[in-house]
Amino acid sequence: MSMLQDAKDIISESITAVLPDVAVKRALARHKLSGLVYVVAIGKAAWKMAAAAHDALGDKIAAGVVITKYEHSQGPIPHMEILEAGHPVPDENGLTATKKALSLVENLTEKDHVLFLVSGGGSALFESPLTGITLLDIADITKKLLACGASIVEINTIRKHLSNVKGGRFAMHCAPAHVLSIVLSDVLGDSLDSIASGPAYPDRSTSQDALLLLEKYGIDLPPHMQAALKLETPKTLSNVSFEITGNVTALCQAAMSASKKRGYSPIMLTTTLDSEARDAGAFLAAIAREIKSSSQPATPPCALILGGETVVHLKGCGKGGRNQELALAAAKGIDGLSDVVIFSVGSDGTDGPTDAAGGIVTGSFAGQCREAGLSLDQHLQDNNSYPVLKTLGGLIVTGPTGTNVNDLTVLMCR
Amino acid sequence: MSMLQDAKDIISESITAVLPDVAVKRALARHKLSGLVYVVAIGKAAWKMAAAAHDALGDKIAAGVVITKYEHSQGPIPHMEILEAGHPVPDENGLTATKKALSLVENLTEKDHVLFLVSGGGSALFESPLTGITLLDIADITKKLLACGASIVEINTIRKHLSNVKGGRFAMHCAPAHVLSIVLSDVLGDSLDSIASGPAYPDRSTSQDALLLLEKYGIDLPPHMQAALKLETPKTLSNVSFEITGNVTALCQAAMSASKKRGYSPIMLTTTLDSEARDAGAFLAAIAREIKSSSQPATPPCALILGGETVVHLKGCGKGGRNQELALAAAKGIDGLSDVVIFSVGSDGTDGPTDAAGGIVTGSFAGQCREAGLSLDQHLQDNNSYPVLKTLGGLIVTGPTGTNVNDLTVLMCR
Repeated sequence: MSMLQDAKDIISESITAVLPDVAVKRALARHKLSGLVYVVAIGKAAWKMAAAAHDALGDKIAAGVVITKYEHSQGPIPHMEILEAGHPVPDENGLTATKKALSLVENLTEKDHVLFLVSGGGSALFESPLTGITLLDIADITKKLLACGASIVEINTIRKHLSNVKGGRFAMHCAPAHVLSIVLSDVLGDSLDSIASGPAYPDRSTSQDALLLLEKYGIDLPPHMQAALKLETPKTLSNVSFEITGNVTALCQAAMSASKKRGYSPIMLTTTLDSEARDAGAFLAAIAREIKSSSQPATPPCALILGGETVVHLKGCGKGGRNQELALAAAKGIDGLSDVVIFSVGSDGTDGPTDAAGGIVTGSFAGQCREAGLSLDQHLQDNNSYPVLKTLGGLIVTGPTGTNVNDLTVLMCR
Repeated sequence: MSMLQDAKDIISESITAVLPDVAVKRALARHKLSGLVYVVAIGKAAWKMAAAAHDALGDKIAAGVVITKYEHSQGPIPHMEILEAGHPVPDENGLTATKKALSLVENLTEKDHVLFLVSGGGSALFESPLTGITLLDIADITKKLLACGASIVEINTIRKHLSNVKGGRFAMHCAPAHVLSIVLSDVLGDSLDSIASGPAYPDRSTSQDALLLLEKYGIDLPPHMQAALKLETPKTLSNVSFEITGNVTALCQAAMSASKKRGYSPIMLTTTLDSEARDAGAFLAAIAREIKSSSQPATPPCALILGGETVVHLKGCGKGGRNQELALAAAKGIDGLSDVVIFSVGSDGTDGPTDAAGGIVTGSFAGQCREAGLSLDQHLQDNNSYPVLKTLGGLIVTGPTGTNVNDLTVLMCR
């Protein structure tokens, strides 16, 4: 099997492993849910996650509420009510839908399970302000805080204390039923109290924190909002458990398994790559040269796995994306090496404003550039990775994949 | 022992291991030279290397010729003639000195050894043109080739064929005596036929290559030079062996030993790092985060070792160097991590136009910046790493070390 074919298989297996439905089924396989299951699914991938839960659990599901963005549902799912609402700006449909979810979980017993399926966009779609507070109140205080230069963490501290579902309060409504959260995370670092503002996770921020912020920024609130801020969010929750899945770590772990299966000893270098794209490529190429010359840090056949999201500081006006640029820069650094492949690919199937998901190069790519009269340096300088990769067959094209958990970068040596 | 103390010890042990005298003694310890030894030492470190050989071999040395740059010798060495000559432009003193070296090695027997000590600058200092050719002839053709845009490899192809010592010809003069070359290399990649134009290494370029270059660039040479170019350089040599030492690989290997001795499992990532300094720092920080969160790619305590030479594309007008900038960028990426140290240091003891050799940071460095009211981002943007490192005790200062084998960068986790 050629290394390029191996690479394609690794890409396809890795992305498949983090698709919402695959991720939900894999997570459910690890948790035995006895008794009746009530599903609440929120976020842009809510429909897919709920459908996968139905596939996996069937009639164990008593009922469910699915809250997703407009035009993001794909038809009926047995036992579930599918609702669409506003994102990124919350709207009345979101409030109504969230109230339906709250009714669903009130009055459950300790034998029941709430399966809480969370994906990106959940914070806007899943909202029910405390009694007396309106969406307008929340929009208003948010605007004031932004104007004062408050951080997103500070803004969320206030918002959580004004909400009847955020900051762990949703899990309180579910009690005594147990809540299993399955979280599809596109946030580097995976802080559970920040994803969707943590409806089923103990809140780290306190009522006092919220009140001090008003003081800090000199913001005067009407009495009904001041009163709301004085109510504490839960600091411990005994009825919750979590499964973070379909995130960049899962993407990298899938790449490790897929590499191993094809005979490449896998090494995970990082899941939080965030440097300039071209320099990540140069760095990886420097490791490739060492592997080929001294079998360090790994003996071929091997695969070094990286996840994260690099950045590109545009200087030219060419066509490309961060993954394509990383690959092109790497091509320069592995010029002439045999049995080396480096690829980088966006898990959502898109890289920059192009129809490609990323780029893939070998040690002979730079030579092919020279033969074709294409200057690798010039294309790099112009942020113009797409045309040269396209001409020499170095584009990775997957089409939209239905997931978005950052990028996967792999160095393969044989 | 604190990690910072460990780091300082690792830096000092690593640089000591690549000092010319230490490197020569270590190399000699691996080779048993029976019979009489004739020393020919060339290059800027020739005196130090020859003195080290005398320390190691004593009266086994029958005689020696040391050819170094003006003001680079430091007194007499028993049995050796110390000669100084022109560098980087060769001069008559270089020719005379080289002829003395040639006389020394003529008429040796197969029981004798020539110990050939090579360091940077050897190409200019060690030259003896073929009969009939003058230094002026060589300067003239070099100028013409440069004007035509010829590459340094092409220029050396011509020069080797005009020389009586380059391109392996020195080793021919030594035969039947055996030649052990000990090469102190400051060239990334260590190509033996290019270091000092390879006096004791089989030449890869042919007489035909040289003649074709004249055609390619349309250069007309006088008959005596044409005739010289038609003489072939040796393509195989049966009387030579090599020891490359005091190079960046030796620097990294010493860092590995020093780390291991202090309880950090060492991993060599690369000896040819060449990316943008700040992004190498960011990349390394991303690996640090992974090690601390998932014990991948290595379980602490561990040390990841990198050698090479990063680059800085200046945007600001601050004070710093590539090693200091790498360290400062890394500080940002390891913000808040405990038991993490990243340092980067130039083996010659200087980094950019500063009195520091490099920078060293921990996970608390970024917090110390905030407390001191210093903006890490702003200093990075201004290429102004020196002042902030100096203020917070993050400079590495060694003074001139007497060697130059690129930079050493290490990530330590405990």
